[in-house]
Amino acid sequence: MTAPTSGTRPDDARRHNRAALLRRLHVDGPCTRATLATELGLNRSTIKAVVDGLAEAGVVTEAVPTRRSGAGRPSLLVLPEPQSAVVLAVDIRVDQVGMAMVGIGGQILGRHSWNLHRTTRLPGEVITHVAESAQLLREELGVVEQGVGVSVPGVVRRRDGLVHEAPNLGWREVALGSRLTAVLGKQAQVGNDAELGALAEHLRGVARDASDLVYLSADVGVGGGVIAGGRPLRGTGGYVGELGHLLVRPDGRDCFCGAQGCWETEVGEPALCRALGLAEDTPRGVLVAELRSLAAVPGRADLLLDDYAGWMVAGLVTVVNMLAPELVVLGDLFAALPPSVVARVRDEVQRRSLVSRAVGGTRMEVSPLGRDGKLVGAAELAFEPVLGAV
Amino acid sequence: MTAPTSGTRPDDARRHNRAALLRRLHVDGPCTRATLATELGLNRSTIKAVVDGLAEAGVVTEAVPTRRSGAGRPSLLVLPEPQSAVVLAVDIRVDQVGMAMVGIGGQILGRHSWNLHRTTRLPGEVITHVAESAQLLREELGVVEQGVGVSVPGVVRRRDGLVHEAPNLGWREVALGSRLTAVLGKQAQVGNDAELGALAEHLRGVARDASDLVYLSADVGVGGGVIAGGRPLRGTGGYVGELGHLLVRPDGRDCFCGAQGCWETEVGEPALCRALGLAEDTPRGVLVAELRSLAAVPGRADLLLDDYAGWMVAGLVTVVNMLAPELVVLGDLFAALPPSVVARVRDEVQRRSLVSRAVGGTRMEVSPLGRDGKLVGAAELAFEPVLGAV
Repeated sequence: MTAPTSGTRPDDARRHNRAALLRRLHVDGPCTRATLATELGLNRSTIKAVVDGLAEAGVVTEAVPTRRSGAGRPSLLVLPEPQSAVVLAVDIRVDQVGMAMVGIGGQILGRHSWNLHRTTRLPGEVITHVAESAQLLREELGVVEQGVGVSVPGVVRRRDGLVHEAPNLGWREVALGSRLTAVLGKQAQVGNDAELGALAEHLRGVARDASDLVYLSADVGVGGGVIAGGRPLRGTGGYVGELGHLLVRPDGRDCFCGAQGCWETEVGEPALCRALGLAEDTPRGVLVAELRSLAAVPGRADLLLDDYAGWMVAGLVTVVNMLAPELVVLGDLFAALPPSVVARVRDEVQRRSLVSRAVGGTRMEVSPLGRDGKLVGAAELAFEPVLGAV
Repeated sequence: MTAPTSGTRPDDARRHNRAALLRRLHVDGPCTRATLATELGLNRSTIKAVVDGLAEAGVVTEAVPTRRSGAGRPSLLVLPEPQSAVVLAVDIRVDQVGMAMVGIGGQILGRHSWNLHRTTRLPGEVITHVAESAQLLREELGVVEQGVGVSVPGVVRRRDGLVHEAPNLGWREVALGSRLTAVLGKQAQVGNDAELGALAEHLRGVARDASDLVYLSADVGVGGGVIAGGRPLRGTGGYVGELGHLLVRPDGRDCFCGAQGCWETEVGEPALCRALGLAEDTPRGVLVAELRSLAAVPGRADLLLDDYAGWMVAGLVTVVNMLAPELVVLGDLFAALPPSVVARVRDEVQRRSLVSRAVGGTRMEVSPLGRDGKLVGAAELAFEPVLGAV
């Protein structure tokens, strides 16, 4: 339904090829010119011109591969220069803010983080602290970021980074994108934390080969990010769906959102604490330690988390039936669930979901990125415009 | 993440322009060469060459518009010739099969339909009858279809038209696409009925201006089709999500799918019959008449359908929170719900959905295409490859 363009000018083509080649190196790592030519569908002279240009600009270097296959002159290995294009990634969580300078290729060059409490969680405080930490990181590492990506556990309008509501931070209608852009002097892209978690798994995690996946995470509340047909799924206005607020239990607890029995009220961090007989505001470290020790006693986790697992299944059946993903990634706190509980949830979803059976079974994996997932996703969000402009 | 192509050859560009122009005329109707040039971003000499070629082939005609604006020579109006490219649309419903020959531009040239009963609902019977009816339509209208599109109320693998399960037809693992292709001698594309309903509303119905929409329909069971970012949302293997099988009621009725309290068991056609005190297998005509007479007595529908509306709300809050659509279209049987019930559902979804509030309110409209929606969608499915090949 899109109108055809009237043709491609040589400059556009060069820029396009350059960005595509950089993106390939950034996401999939160093490779030979020959591989680049094959993967990008470009001839070797075009690849040579682009690589030479990037090497002159100091964005890539070339090296002779140590292992060679076949006879003849080995194809040179092209490597991105991490410091040549750097972004600032900011992961605002309920209990902590994590920041990192990330170089092209995805290398974390340096980090900074601090804890959040009720009094330091105000938007103004967080923004000031982010600006100060960014300055420290710049000085420490001797780099300046070219872009900024921010992860927030809330409902975010992607166009301008307005945080409509981040309940567990107590934020409403915070113009985070424009305020951070103002203090940092670089365009700040803001995204929903679970959407960025999904992006991270898709580019650098367990979902690299999946084009249809759902990433689920619990950071107090429950969020979900969806990649459908290889692209992030967003609704109108760029809003990302809120998987934590699908309704699973008509007689369930009241949710802050105005509904009752949201998935989040049944399987979020406080619900998990309750199931284990812990106070709802048990610190994350204590909760994770408890889950680990529980997993060591056969049958104990399954007994204590029986109801909890049932609500996990209820929400997941709905998610799988609606979206038909090939893979569900459990991130953040969900990644700490005892393996036997994850296995039970996986089996039961398979049994109860019509769509899972139709697609030949939905895989369920625990995130390998752990707590870094959303930070990695925020960096990728920042790299999107940067890679086109290097 | 896609590799750039190495350039566009003149032949490809011509074909591309021709298909884009035909698609524009097909979907949005006749318009002037000047409008085509503006909308497609092509210069007037390119438009002239393409239109002249299509006119020579008899695919379009040109006419002097009766109304003219401004001075100077009026721009000629370009009209598609309906008979020059014809497709066969087949809408397999639970109680009926509807077929039509549809010309380019969307005009229905002729129709045929017959009722289905338990004994005539077998795949082999339906396929034979479709082939016979197609032959009758060809002879009656003096046309031959260039493509075939089929709508089925079931879980369909789009790649090859395998019907994995169509519970209300009693079908399982029916190779409908290849079997129809064999008897009709033309490639038959098979789609899920609700997905095709969504496509029809998006191209020719109430959702022409919406890029993020959900279409909901009840034909015995409940189905949903989703357009996200202007494209049909599909999961792995091309399977479309099954919105009828999101779980809304943990203590609800058993569903054929193996789960309990699916949305379909609470708001499908039998549930609506029960709410009105009718037998579950009340014929559609009787049910719709009952709904109409109910709407005439103020307050009566709201009272009888109070619980029913509550389950509509529960499912819709989940759908809206997960997908953030700007528009929900109620199709098929849902289009016959009394207006006061639709208004209540709309208001309550708005109040209880976090995402609906974030996006500034989710519109909810009744389908204007009525029972023809899925037939129209099946025709569009068939036109997709045909328009590129005319």
